[in-house]
Amino acid sequence: MGKDHARAGRRYTQALKTFADTYRQDLFESVLPFWMRHSIDQEHGGFFTCLDRDGTIYDTRKYVWLNGRQVWMLSRLYNQVERRQEWLDAAREGALFLRRHARDAEGRCYFALTREGAPAAFQRKPYGAVFMMIGLLEYSKASGEQWAREESEALFASIRRWIAAPGLLGRPSLPGSPRFSQLADIMVVLSMALELEAGEVIRECMEAAFRHVEPNRGILIENVPPAGENLLDLPEGRLFCPGHAVEVCWFMLHALRHHPNAAAQERVLQLMENSLIFGWDEDYEGLHYFMDIQGRPCLQLEASLKLWWPHTEAIYGLVYAYTLTGEAKWLRWLERVHTYTYRTFPDREHGEWYGYCDRYGKPTHTLKGNNYKGCFHVPRALLFSIQRIEEASHGNVRTD
Amino acid sequence: MGKDHARAGRRYTQALKTFADTYRQDLFESVLPFWMRHSIDQEHGGFFTCLDRDGTIYDTRKYVWLNGRQVWMLSRLYNQVERRQEWLDAAREGALFLRRHARDAEGRCYFALTREGAPAAFQRKPYGAVFMMIGLLEYSKASGEQWAREESEALFASIRRWIAAPGLLGRPSLPGSPRFSQLADIMVVLSMALELEAGEVIRECMEAAFRHVEPNRGILIENVPPAGENLLDLPEGRLFCPGHAVEVCWFMLHALRHHPNAAAQERVLQLMENSLIFGWDEDYEGLHYFMDIQGRPCLQLEASLKLWWPHTEAIYGLVYAYTLTGEAKWLRWLERVHTYTYRTFPDREHGEWYGYCDRYGKPTHTLKGNNYKGCFHVPRALLFSIQRIEEASHGNVRTD
Repeated sequence: MGKDHARAGRRYTQALKTFADTYRQDLFESVLPFWMRHSIDQEHGGFFTCLDRDGTIYDTRKYVWLNGRQVWMLSRLYNQVERRQEWLDAAREGALFLRRHARDAEGRCYFALTREGAPAAFQRKPYGAVFMMIGLLEYSKASGEQWAREESEALFASIRRWIAAPGLLGRPSLPGSPRFSQLADIMVVLSMALELEAGEVIRECMEAAFRHVEPNRGILIENVPPAGENLLDLPEGRLFCPGHAVEVCWFMLHALRHHPNAAAQERVLQLMENSLIFGWDEDYEGLHYFMDIQGRPCLQLEASLKLWWPHTEAIYGLVYAYTLTGEAKWLRWLERVHTYTYRTFPDREHGEWYGYCDRYGKPTHTLKGNNYKGCFHVPRALLFSIQRIEEASHGNVRTD
Repeated sequence: MGKDHARAGRRYTQALKTFADTYRQDLFESVLPFWMRHSIDQEHGGFFTCLDRDGTIYDTRKYVWLNGRQVWMLSRLYNQVERRQEWLDAAREGALFLRRHARDAEGRCYFALTREGAPAAFQRKPYGAVFMMIGLLEYSKASGEQWAREESEALFASIRRWIAAPGLLGRPSLPGSPRFSQLADIMVVLSMALELEAGEVIRECMEAAFRHVEPNRGILIENVPPAGENLLDLPEGRLFCPGHAVEVCWFMLHALRHHPNAAAQERVLQLMENSLIFGWDEDYEGLHYFMDIQGRPCLQLEASLKLWWPHTEAIYGLVYAYTLTGEAKWLRWLERVHTYTYRTFPDREHGEWYGYCDRYGKPTHTLKGNNYKGCFHVPRALLFSIQRIEEASHGNVRTD
């Protein structure tokens, strides 16, 4: 296959460069300008994320996890793309807002704050703290401010305790409540551990993630019970979220960069491919949001929607898989996901992407951000894809 | 207008009879057989509600509020339609299951139980208790069992306390959390007070509901702040749920039956008409689920779906309004809503209705029941509509 393979490699490299050009233009001319122009609260600090199509604020609250994510994103751009002062300044406003307002007396993070910073909502989940942790860590690298690193590491320790014992966040422990491991928890711990380069935790997370493999289809499912128990008679035990599965896969591939293991890498790539195949809507294209692995009903009313973030995660996962292996199948998948995504989500008039479309790809909401969508998935996937393709073009990663 | 009006009246009465025939056939040949056949747990008592299209159980948990609603529905049928033993027997199984398992040591209701009755989920809202209360009350009338009436009345007192002080259910009180009156709370208290014929509480609820009028459009909105405060900069303060508004309107019309007040009745009818006009999807028909009164984005991802229950509530509300006033506009609305509803939701093959469709009217879920849909809205609206039309045909209510 030598000659054909080499020829294919050249063609594929050109295809990747074209993708990178699209992502670069989208990131720097559409996505980042939208957030820099509309999300920063010059008066009280922190970031608005509930922005309508043209950037109009329709909810003045500050959501802790999205503020943490935006601090991370802006700091990462400053650290890895360019020392642009406006990115560092905005990241600082976000970091200081979180430092002042995000936590209660016991150190737990609120979910939402008022514009001024008063606590507005508490969620019995650790995700506010997770993204505050990641944001402060990246900000400490950008600013050199030691307090940010220290608070970040302290949060990491707390989050590990909260995930191990959810009662600490106020979740009641009920005898009939199903016990299971959640893929989301594993992913956020893995994402934090990767940032901190905490090798032992990374290894634990990899093992925990492999326990989420559904054996019949070879995909990663959301919730698995302790050994010997069965969750398949409950919707939670049959829940599959293709975007989540693919996102976990690329996190695992990142983890394997630090601890190479060819067999594990092959297994993760297979999980990613299976998850894409099972998760793809063959009738109307795009990745399903939620699915039941037995084709039974989902309890989530929004299951039939098409969301922006499974597609950003798939794009980067596929860029990664293709640059890692050079196998043509990954490029075909990337072209398929890319084409659907760019036909469906970006708003060429006002910048950024729509977040929520119906099954047929028509936006159900005009919003660019809400309490779940902020300056994070789109710019992260675009930046990571650009960086990965640049690495490949410099010959630092294998493309063919 | 005398002669024309009288002619119109005769035609309308024939139209109503045709509707009643449809509802009777649907209720007794499709809806009730589905639930009687598939929902009753002969082994452990209580009712399954997570039933797929053909009645297959896809989640074995028992949801307290839906179990309470089914106890109410079956008891009501026994009390007002026919002394059918199978209805009373099933209601008893549900009532005893709730009595044994639904409450914690402090008397608060769980949200979900396992099939066997162990606590599976707690919700910091009073709705489990509300429908247990209403179910036990109706069951006490069917069975003559005094314990059910006593427990029901005790629950009513607790629920009033929980709504006044949500902290008792574990909801944290945060300084930045918006304070507002919720239409849902008023409606459930009103529904309980109507069952108990608690005149003073009914009067309070009517006043509270009128405070939910949005002055520009003359509709009932979900959340209103205390006097002097403004909620319009938050999505909660702009939230409109047409199905809810119409449901509250017919509850208010029921309340006015006991305490006649012509001006209030006229006002409620106007609110209902305005809510239908604003809530109707002129592009694809049907009632929207959630809307923002300023046309800004909703935070609810499922906002664009079409749900079954706004349509059941509109059908009964319109039957009521038309039989009350004889005005042709209500019949035109009823025909519009009825035609859309019967084209969209009922499943003629396996019985009952689909619950969730996309904006265009295509089912997004095959389920007939879940943790929110059970043996309640469809059979209640059908039974109430049949009864109201029968009353009208006997000349007990004004139809023209």
